[in-house]
Amino acid sequence: MASDFRLKEQLPNLTEQIVATYTKDDAMNHLGHCALPSYTAVVDILLDLKDILYPGYRRKVGLHAGNIRYHVGSLIDSLHDQLTTQIACALRHEHRVTQKHQDCESDVDFEAKGQAMAIELLVRIPELRRILATDAQAAYDGDPACRTTDEVVFCYPGFAAITVYRIAHELLKLQVPFIPRMMTEWAHQKTGIDIHPGATIGEHFFIDHGTGVVIGETCEIGDHVKLYQGVTLGALSFKTDEDGELIRGTKRHPTIENSVVVYANATILGGRTVVGKESVIGSSVWITKTVPPATTVTLEKPQLRVRSGKDDESIDEMNFQI
Amino acid sequence: MASDFRLKEQLPNLTEQIVATYTKDDAMNHLGHCALPSYTAVVDILLDLKDILYPGYRRKVGLHAGNIRYHVGSLIDSLHDQLTTQIACALRHEHRVTQKHQDCESDVDFEAKGQAMAIELLVRIPELRRILATDAQAAYDGDPACRTTDEVVFCYPGFAAITVYRIAHELLKLQVPFIPRMMTEWAHQKTGIDIHPGATIGEHFFIDHGTGVVIGETCEIGDHVKLYQGVTLGALSFKTDEDGELIRGTKRHPTIENSVVVYANATILGGRTVVGKESVIGSSVWITKTVPPATTVTLEKPQLRVRSGKDDESIDEMNFQI
Amino acid sequence: MASDFRLKEQLPNLTEQIVATYTKDDAMNHLGHCALPSYTAVVDILLDLKDILYPGYRRKVGLHAGNIRYHVGSLIDSLHDQLTTQIACALRHEHRVTQKHQDCESDVDFEAKGQAMAIELLVRIPELRRILATDAQAAYDGDPACRTTDEVVFCYPGFAAITVYRIAHELLKLQVPFIPRMMTEWAHQKTGIDIHPGATIGEHFFIDHGTGVVIGETCEIGDHVKLYQGVTLGALSFKTDEDGELIRGTKRHPTIENSVVVYANATILGGRTVVGKESVIGSSVWITKTVPPATTVTLEKPQLRVRSGKDDESIDEMNFQI
Repeated sequence: MASDFRLKEQLPNLTEQIVATYTKDDAMNHLGHCALPSYTAVVDILLDLKDILYPGYRRKVGLHAGNIRYHVGSLIDSLHDQLTTQIACALRHEHRVTQKHQDCESDVDFEAKGQAMAIELLVRIPELRRILATDAQAAYDGDPACRTTDEVVFCYPGFAAITVYRIAHELLKLQVPFIPRMMTEWAHQKTGIDIHPGATIGEHFFIDHGTGVVIGETCEIGDHVKLYQGVTLGALSFKTDEDGELIRGTKRHPTIENSVVVYANATILGGRTVVGKESVIGSSVWITKTVPPATTVTLEKPQLRVRSGKDDESIDEMNFQI
Repeated sequence: MASDFRLKEQLPNLTEQIVATYTKDDAMNHLGHCALPSYTAVVDILLDLKDILYPGYRRKVGLHAGNIRYHVGSLIDSLHDQLTTQIACALRHEHRVTQKHQDCESDVDFEAKGQAMAIELLVRIPELRRILATDAQAAYDGDPACRTTDEVVFCYPGFAAITVYRIAHELLKLQVPFIPRMMTEWAHQKTGIDIHPGATIGEHFFIDHGTGVVIGETCEIGDHVKLYQGVTLGALSFKTDEDGELIRGTKRHPTIENSVVVYANATILGGRTVVGKESVIGSSVWITKTVPPATTVTLEKPQLRVRSGKDDESIDEMNFQI
Repeated sequence: MASDFRLKEQLPNLTEQIVATYTKDDAMNHLGHCALPSYTAVVDILLDLKDILYPGYRRKVGLHAGNIRYHVGSLIDSLHDQLTTQIACALRHEHRVTQKHQDCESDVDFEAKGQAMAIELLVRIPELRRILATDAQAAYDGDPACRTTDEVVFCYPGFAAITVYRIAHELLKLQVPFIPRMMTEWAHQKTGIDIHPGATIGEHFFIDHGTGVVIGETCEIGDHVKLYQGVTLGALSFKTDEDGELIRGTKRHPTIENSVVVYANATILGGRTVVGKESVIGSSVWITKTVPPATTVTLEKPQLRVRSGKDDESIDEMNFQI
């Protein structure tokens, strides 16, 4: 039996009811406003940039000395236009929000500003390639199961997230609004690794496995740092009772100095927390205070309850240490 | 050199061997049965619903007062048909399973039932928009790095997961089988946030970062609750030795009252566990018992082993407190 | 206003600067080399294999006894060609890396080798279906919210990750390089579950929720094992001070015997760590030593600091046990 057409007749009325909720005060519609940056366009920009950063790995094969100029030149030309358009959208949106305008009219030439920022990003590609090569090397050096840096570039999620972070961080330094966060959230979705584009991260950075890693906006991370899955470098958002002080101010996330290793699921919180150089933070450790350089912090012999058997009625507390 | 054609000649025989494993008793084929709901169709439904819930954000730009009726009306019309078809598939499948039929013949008019449920979901869109606006506001209020609710709607994974949960939960309340879980698993894949559609969640709900969050089927969550990444609201599936009682019954997951905050990687287990209103559960805390209202629970000074240096042969137990 | 064409004139120069960084020593380009395996081709192979393993679930509906042979036969034929090509790429790349050749010329017939491996994988499909059916059954048996194995096959992320792992593990046993890791990283991206293709995993394996699970390369897992979200079966990469011994050697990851359950966010580390059969490891437990069979390990009464109120100035240490 087919659907009942009389029931379907209520749809126009329903449409009216929904449209009536799209009011001016409604924070969840973008009717009549200047467009937001396009999510798909921003993802395309990232894919094009990755093609230039790592030629021959993913989308385009058969590249060689004879055709690479055409390939890169064509991508750069297209990226120039895409970036200009999307950055202009983001600037116009930012202007509207900060000026509390309801529309997006303005005397500012957002396209011209967008173009300047777009070109500035493209100019930084050789330097991005240099830094990212140190990250690929760090992954190769840090993972005994890794045979070549090809594997890293090709399928390591940590490297994928760091690539997007480094691009987004450059855009953030150029004061491009909105788009850096869109980029890192795309990487977050793909890898489970959430790096805020505002974080500062040195060279030779490696994240292994990576799912659940969170790196907050005001983190400062040195060179040769290695993180494992589930590590949180976060904010101490509620009051601590140790010194009675309220944590405020702009720096909310920790500083990790050079050559630190943080193992799986460790949590390091607070803007005044510094992990000194060459220290090692063990798996599942929870830290809210500064750790001196060259220090190893691990969980004390865990406070575990060990029982023989699975049946509660015959519990035999074992004199047994794990 | 090309492949060996004689080797390829064994493929038909191999096909026969594989097809021979598709027996009637085999739980892993759907031959001759009525179709399951289509995964891609269900994802399309979610994308269309998001276009109506948040017009102008993602797929369609250039919407304004003059064309929004056509846009929404067209989407509603298409959603009516898609939802009717997919819900009918799910109902027919459910019928076959519960009646242990091998085929999907039935006197029931599944399309008519599907249509009624589809329209009932569409009718609830204005109310869904109202609740989701409180969630967007909660994210804005709860994240100091957030500049506008636009960012929340556009790229916050927690908000994306909550949107899908709220749609799926409405379908579950309408007793639509199978599809609610498909929807929340899609959101789980995209965000790393696993909210069972059966959970009950109040207004102004915010999940920050979100990767690894698990909210079980029988959770009850009040208004103005905030969760961070890695939080598990789960079941106590094995016996506790504290009171010798076996945890059974329908409510397996905790209750979180109004205005509670649960920080990163905290684990709250058990159907009789209640976190009282306005309480704060600290990062990495593990709780299986009820917490009174207005209580702060954090890890005690962590039991850490702190050593100077990284070389085991020169361990110097430090008289040092982190 | 449009963009400034004079600014755009610097793009060719920029292209030259970028291309100049693609040197022979540069580890991050694949110019002039034989192609790497194609990421999209490898994903297509996985989707085709899933269509054969679970006919009627996802892409193709309307399959029945009368057409299933054509469907499977056509997929097998196409898989033969795709697998042969991609495995040959991987073998040629591996050869180049191990022989330190700059090009990919060789006397070896990589296509012939690839074809033999491709057919060997296809021959194992019936056995893969048999084992995967035990995994679907384990999910059904292990999750009280699950109504039919259909749900497991259709949308359980743990099952999706295990499916890809079992395919990748067969390829790894056939000594196919590179592709197994590409496959499991694709599953990792989709599910948040990171299973190294080298791990050995018995039948009736179930991972619930799954986000954040990491299973290392040298893990050995028995039959009827159940893991929850956030479980790490990892390496002890730094020295322990308990016995002064350095953990080295090939086996870096733990052994989990038959019928073990590991609850959410537990961490089990070390190649000499064995969790004996029928043991239960509780949520958030951290273990680096062997656990005897039939043992339950949970967190001891947690070391928590419980304060009444949220205001530090009126802390009232409560005489209260959670």
